[in-house]
Amino acid sequence: MSLRDLSLYTNEIERALRQTLRRGDAESAPLYGMMQYHLGWLDRNLQLHQGRLGKRLRPVLCLLACQACGGDWRRALPAACAIELLHNFTLIHDDIEDNSALRHERATVWNVWGLAQGVNTGDAMWSLSRLSVLSLSAEGYDAATVLDVARLLEETSLALCEGQYLDIAFETRQDVTLDEYLRMIEGKTAALLSAALRVGALLGGASDEQLAAWGQVGRSLGLAFQIIDDILGIWGDPAVTGKSAASDILEAKKTLPILQALAWEAQQPTRPLSALYAGGALDERQVPLVLECLEQADSLAYAQQQAARHHEAMRQALATIDGSEPAMTTLRALTASLLERRY
Amino acid sequence: MSLRDLSLYTNEIERALRQTLRRGDAESAPLYGMMQYHLGWLDRNLQLHQGRLGKRLRPVLCLLACQACGGDWRRALPAACAIELLHNFTLIHDDIEDNSALRHERATVWNVWGLAQGVNTGDAMWSLSRLSVLSLSAEGYDAATVLDVARLLEETSLALCEGQYLDIAFETRQDVTLDEYLRMIEGKTAALLSAALRVGALLGGASDEQLAAWGQVGRSLGLAFQIIDDILGIWGDPAVTGKSAASDILEAKKTLPILQALAWEAQQPTRPLSALYAGGALDERQVPLVLECLEQADSLAYAQQQAARHHEAMRQALATIDGSEPAMTTLRALTASLLERRY
Repeated sequence: MSLRDLSLYTNEIERALRQTLRRGDAESAPLYGMMQYHLGWLDRNLQLHQGRLGKRLRPVLCLLACQACGGDWRRALPAACAIELLHNFTLIHDDIEDNSALRHERATVWNVWGLAQGVNTGDAMWSLSRLSVLSLSAEGYDAATVLDVARLLEETSLALCEGQYLDIAFETRQDVTLDEYLRMIEGKTAALLSAALRVGALLGGASDEQLAAWGQVGRSLGLAFQIIDDILGIWGDPAVTGKSAASDILEAKKTLPILQALAWEAQQPTRPLSALYAGGALDERQVPLVLECLEQADSLAYAQQQAARHHEAMRQALATIDGSEPAMTTLRALTASLLERRY
Repeated sequence: MSLRDLSLYTNEIERALRQTLRRGDAESAPLYGMMQYHLGWLDRNLQLHQGRLGKRLRPVLCLLACQACGGDWRRALPAACAIELLHNFTLIHDDIEDNSALRHERATVWNVWGLAQGVNTGDAMWSLSRLSVLSLSAEGYDAATVLDVARLLEETSLALCEGQYLDIAFETRQDVTLDEYLRMIEGKTAALLSAALRVGALLGGASDEQLAAWGQVGRSLGLAFQIIDDILGIWGDPAVTGKSAASDILEAKKTLPILQALAWEAQQPTRPLSALYAGGALDERQVPLVLECLEQADSLAYAQQQAARHHEAMRQALATIDGSEPAMTTLRALTASLLERRY
């Protein structure tokens, strides 16, 4: 599954995004310019720029689910666009909350225009996302369906905020359990992937029972996806991930492998990992010590098993859905490719 | 018009707000706790606290407009609640964007829990605001009406973001015109007051023509209200405003009186005010110099005239509305009291 095969969808998503951002008068134009910078269309001088575009994964999943349920995916474009803008609003605010100066080697919005404009630009993008949902009426969907989609995405947004709350709170806690971690990534990662598929299915005319199955596919996909991200953050090849080696260790992120090793270590006579993670960011010399602790606890195998378990749950949930072709084949290939990233 | 006369409405608004915030499980409870702290119900240890509550002005205006149009104001409570949460979300983010450590002599959310939780708590409150709008369906409003309210509030939110963008951008600009300033306060202050009245009128069954008149009342009220705020920020009595004397001068805020004086001064041989405002915050010794410049330019009289002009426009717009009693009398008294703050 290459991105080229999905260009039918991504081209239309890009067009819909550009149309949604076509707003503002001469005075407020730079506000929309900062959003376009974030989306990769403009440079920091707000001049046209051929930047790296996102994979638009979530809106593609939305459109494929719509098509698989027998819907006309083009009519679902405002929802797909809303989901991508919701995702990108969270990235703009996450970069502020994590104090990240770069995203994919490019200065983040707050880094270029300051904290105040960064927060406000994220807010404005979220507003555009909601307006895009509400514009589904113009595609001929009845008001009750539009309200259902709006409610689903708003409940998802609140779940994202709850996940983000936990993620921030965990940074200063030494006693995060594996269950708490799963609860956090359900909010931060799984909720939106699940919502993308459910919104598409809803607009495609799926029954409540089908909607639940689509939700399960998205939830399992999200959990597997995040755990693989956690594995790549420690053992990933910098040439493949585009991040520095062991980046999550250097930032002392308490991801799944670390939490499993901390839990294992709690039963042992000495606790070197706990000591290493007691004091914020780590330096390069400490990385081999952390890796040694993870090896002792067999953390890589544990994380791989967990990812495989959620991957299998996703495949099974997908198999229960009697969707139409070729969307189902594309969905199976796309989700598999997401979970087969190398490390 | 005392706040006691409005307690019929404010008590119900408070109840609706508390119900909307009754969310979250044991893990995410502190996220909702931080919102309750902001609303004055909890202290910084998230314990019950009898704090200063907001005036709930915007939701009260919404309910009065609904009642004046012949609607049952109690059914409009979810919308009133949504408007108050939208307003408070903007306050939480504004405090971050303005780097304000205190609000009404109380530590701001970001000041107590850090920048990251501050941004995220604002986001979560905005999400609750939207969910409250969408819950209007449970009050028996048809889906199309609920969508109309959601659209109106979302367009208003985007106007708020545009106004906030301009406000932040003006801080570092020396050439802000009076027209640009009016455009900014239309977004930052007038848009939400106008929306509060229009949403109430819409839920009360107003015609499109009536809606436009309500919007005009809110817009003029907002402009007059903000200009009076600007006057108080320079000449207000600290005992009445609760802020330090000449607080806007000390923060070098480019409010209406300052911009008028700068414009006047541009036609003069010397420009002392421009020099004073060229370098960020001012100190106490510079305040008399600024006041002298404002006196030369007759800025207080100018600002008072502008406030009076918008006040009169509001009265005239209100007079065109054939609303029912006693709501209209209450609205006239409430809006007049807002514009008769002493300075």
